[in-house]
Amino acid sequence: MTYCVGLLLDEGMVLLSDTRTNAGLDNISTYRKMFIYEDPGERVIVMMTSGSLSVTQTTIARLDEAVHAIDAADRGSIMTCETMLQVAEMIGQTLSDVRVEIASKMSRASESASAAMIVAGQRRGGAMRMFLIYPEGNFIEATKDTPFLQIGEHKYGKPILDRVVRPETSLQDARKAALLSMDSTLRSNLSVGMPLDLVTVRAGACRIEEQRRIDANDETFQEMSLAWSQALRDAFTKIAI
Amino acid sequence: MTYCVGLLLDEGMVLLSDTRTNAGLDNISTYRKMFIYEDPGERVIVMMTSGSLSVTQTTIARLDEAVHAIDAADRGSIMTCETMLQVAEMIGQTLSDVRVEIASKMSRASESASAAMIVAGQRRGGAMRMFLIYPEGNFIEATKDTPFLQIGEHKYGKPILDRVVRPETSLQDARKAALLSMDSTLRSNLSVGMPLDLVTVRAGACRIEEQRRIDANDETFQEMSLAWSQALRDAFTKIAI
Repeated sequence: MTYCVGLLLDEGMVLLSDTRTNAGLDNISTYRKMFIYEDPGERVIVMMTSGSLSVTQTTIARLDEAVHAIDAADRGSIMTCETMLQVAEMIGQTLSDVRVEIASKMSRASESASAAMIVAGQRRGGAMRMFLIYPEGNFIEATKDTPFLQIGEHKYGKPILDRVVRPETSLQDARKAALLSMDSTLRSNLSVGMPLDLVTVRAGACRIEEQRRIDANDETFQEMSLAWSQALRDAFTKIAI
Repeated sequence: MTYCVGLLLDEGMVLLSDTRTNAGLDNISTYRKMFIYEDPGERVIVMMTSGSLSVTQTTIARLDEAVHAIDAADRGSIMTCETMLQVAEMIGQTLSDVRVEIASKMSRASESASAAMIVAGQRRGGAMRMFLIYPEGNFIEATKDTPFLQIGEHKYGKPILDRVVRPETSLQDARKAALLSMDSTLRSNLSVGMPLDLVTVRAGACRIEEQRRIDANDETFQEMSLAWSQALRDAFTKIAI
């Protein structure tokens, strides 16, 4: 499985993904699930993927091919779309096409393949937006009421987000909330694993502000994880019932 | 859906279930999912159910009928079994039979029905044991390494249990952990709802020590829920990253 989470805040956006892919428990690999397209100051797009690797890789490959095509300006790509809504529609259409193609192959073997994506970004002059794209190609958008989107193993890490994330949450606190949400998921589910990919984008900047790969032996993350465990245990001790 | 959790500790056992049942989102009802059989000092058995109500009600009804049958001593029931293992086997067999019967009716309409159960108890002179019974009738047992079992919407409430529950956890702390695990689930998932049924059993006593129904307006629970939210937010603020 996978866990990816995106937070859309007044100050900016935080996106975090794990990298574990498995085909059965005895075939575990590390694959990047976060893909960044950037024309700094003009446009920034971050995509995260969950689900069947064959579907997500082919989808990303087609979107990428369009970006780098010689006739990209004519054919159109996520880097030439006029709005983030059009970006979401293009990704949704590509995901849906790929899924249907692969599903028709899989169905001969009574297997299925599916995938979902989160796409977030901003174009200069436009609004910062974040979408969750379903396997069928349709999508929903993060809003003030629901300022975060999750794909993959989303349940373990949802309680902390429900409690602390609001649109007015600072970028730094949102980063912390995303990492703690991931930490809970890593502890409770083997199919989600380090290293992590973390990106922050400041509203209006149309560029990546921070991009980090967090390895299993990252000291800052380990300290945060330990401190959070301790803080939870302390909080637990203090609660009277 | 449902959320039920059982904790097996050196000091005793804690069992907690919600009561929400839904057939679609517009058909929500309250049904007890915890069933207690007690011969105080001699034997105590607590069952919790999740899944299709038609399967769980029929299963419980058959087990109950056997307990109250005039020839119960000859026919055997969960109250005459010599060990908790035999109790688990009898429940597993009944659940499996009912599921197969109902599934054969449902399959005509391309529908399915399934259910799982937790059963915990002790007989005088025997060990305190707790089992999770799968729809197929087979089961697994709580152990020192894994001192809790969950059925239904188990993911939201797992992180807190993973962090604080050990076999040596006190009965009071286990009670608190179960309630906080339920609180996280209630916040994040609409299909789990108040009131709650809570039971504690002390090791060796072979009787219910505490049995409580916790309503939506229960002040102690509300205070705990608020205090936990506050404690989590405080802990979140203190963590540096």
